[in-house]
Amino acid sequence: MPRVIKAAAAQVGAVHITARKADTVQRLINLLREAAEQKVQLVVFPECTLTTFFPRHFFASQDELDKYFEHGEDITQSADVKPLFDEAKKHAVDFVLGYAERTSDGIGYNTSVYFSAGEGKVINKYRKVHLPGTVEPFEDPKATNQLEKRYFKPGNLGFQAFRAPGLVADSLKQSGHVKDGEELVGKGDPIVGMLICNDRRWPEAWRCYTLQGAELIVFGFNTGGNMAHLWGSKPMSPEEAQKEALFHSRLVQQGNSYMNACFSVSSARCGLDDGKYDLIAGSAICNPEGHIIAEAKTTGDELVIAELDLAECRQGKEKTFDYDRHRRIETYGLISSQTGVVEPPLL
Amino acid sequence: MPRVIKAAAAQVGAVHITARKADTVQRLINLLREAAEQKVQLVVFPECTLTTFFPRHFFASQDELDKYFEHGEDITQSADVKPLFDEAKKHAVDFVLGYAERTSDGIGYNTSVYFSAGEGKVINKYRKVHLPGTVEPFEDPKATNQLEKRYFKPGNLGFQAFRAPGLVADSLKQSGHVKDGEELVGKGDPIVGMLICNDRRWPEAWRCYTLQGAELIVFGFNTGGNMAHLWGSKPMSPEEAQKEALFHSRLVQQGNSYMNACFSVSSARCGLDDGKYDLIAGSAICNPEGHIIAEAKTTGDELVIAELDLAECRQGKEKTFDYDRHRRIETYGLISSQTGVVEPPLL
Repeated sequence: MPRVIKAAAAQVGAVHITARKADTVQRLINLLREAAEQKVQLVVFPECTLTTFFPRHFFASQDELDKYFEHGEDITQSADVKPLFDEAKKHAVDFVLGYAERTSDGIGYNTSVYFSAGEGKVINKYRKVHLPGTVEPFEDPKATNQLEKRYFKPGNLGFQAFRAPGLVADSLKQSGHVKDGEELVGKGDPIVGMLICNDRRWPEAWRCYTLQGAELIVFGFNTGGNMAHLWGSKPMSPEEAQKEALFHSRLVQQGNSYMNACFSVSSARCGLDDGKYDLIAGSAICNPEGHIIAEAKTTGDELVIAELDLAECRQGKEKTFDYDRHRRIETYGLISSQTGVVEPPLL
Repeated sequence: MPRVIKAAAAQVGAVHITARKADTVQRLINLLREAAEQKVQLVVFPECTLTTFFPRHFFASQDELDKYFEHGEDITQSADVKPLFDEAKKHAVDFVLGYAERTSDGIGYNTSVYFSAGEGKVINKYRKVHLPGTVEPFEDPKATNQLEKRYFKPGNLGFQAFRAPGLVADSLKQSGHVKDGEELVGKGDPIVGMLICNDRRWPEAWRCYTLQGAELIVFGFNTGGNMAHLWGSKPMSPEEAQKEALFHSRLVQQGNSYMNACFSVSSARCGLDDGKYDLIAGSAICNPEGHIIAEAKTTGDELVIAELDLAECRQGKEKTFDYDRHRRIETYGLISSQTGVVEPPLL
């Protein structure tokens, strides 16, 4: 039976360090309204959407740093962000939002939440597991910092796939698989998993979700396009570095979507922050055969929309990647028992 | 320090069901000689190279089936294959060879061996872990069978990375990192892992090798290009199906090479077996950034050659994919503890 949802990556262009949070939220609201007009049911916003990508800066002062965080565990209580939740409820659009979270215990996480308009609440929270970058700032003053390992702890919620209620209800009714008046609760609800940015390069993360049946994996990202100065082995121009970053971003989304027989939606925070920090765009929707079916055309605020029929996951999940028949966990022990590399002995 | 090896995929075109094994071995010898002339140090032959890809046929008779296997654990004792080992020793060329192995206990494995010319012996054996296909033949007489699950047991040797002795010796001497007369044993020996065909679609397999520091992953494949009749969800022409199969083959090689920061060499048994069974070509050498640097131009016997500087793995292994700093094994438990899918509860 067809199980179609209309989804969008809501790409967000430059957010300067001086931007007011309420103004940035207004841009998200504009994107969400436009999505609602186009009958989109699920909107995926980027990683750390509410501010400039602050881990590129070293803040000596905790107060200065804390401006970039949402405080407390419940993002729906944030005064700046509340209008976005209200708007989503009004238009009955689900959304995924990435932001920097400061818990009541004072711990920082790189977080995303799934807001279900039907349920009227956040139904899942994910905290980024694979933090890139360094704890200490670079000594080279020309190098752009990536201080996620300083500002965040690795996520402590694991990879918890979840059902997104009601998303395929219209599709089931239209195709006659649900009759008028019939109970819809749970019927065909898509199984979703959230990742954040660098997680997408780690096949372990995707696999943990698809071992729970995930049909749709969504993630936002902030990916530097001007990191040429950091790429030691192959000196390249900023233009080449940007092209290479985009190539890698597409490659891991396509490869992991195929090898996990799932759809994926990726959403970029992109453009030229503060007129000089270049982030790649390339927000994309990928199908379970690894083909990109919709992709950003700009480096600014933009909706990337596609209809996804989750039934298309079945071919992969039931054949080439039928885990029950093909996976051999007795050979995979190293993956979860050994963090780093242990080389074989010399002959 | 540069650690350069010259490697080749030795692609092998059609092998008909009537082909004599000794004649097929002669084709491999021709490829190996040509490689030696071009100063190639390592030649990678395909999966089940010595016969037609027999798992497409149902054999009721064990005797009939056994013609396609090499018997006993030591392939170097096989009369038909011995000339290949002799030739490799003579030219000082290492090679990887895939074949069907029948152990002295009567168990069938889809196997490959690494022959070290310097050591004068097989130094590693791998038995395919991820067997595709079915135990029972298809009922549809038009469907091409894939009876690997009937004819083989899943490999029982795990993923054992190993050192390939001496391969970078010339490179170290030329760059002055090893002085004349200096002891070479073990110095910079590449760390290698072998996969076979369908294994390449399973990120677990690659990761098990690179958790042992693998810098080079090699695999042969037999991949049907005319499987359109089996692809239920998206009816496509044979030409489209072949294009799609090649797309997936490239995607997983590129994606996994990048996410594991290793080189890879893939070698196809390809062409039109018996004038009707189409196998894709596309033997390829991929670098640790996920770019294909050499690729087959034909669907017949062909060498695909490239110089690989293993030092290019360092960028990935020491930064983006520095396992020690980034992997979070406390979140990966499902991967090695749960074979199939366990879906989340309904909300």
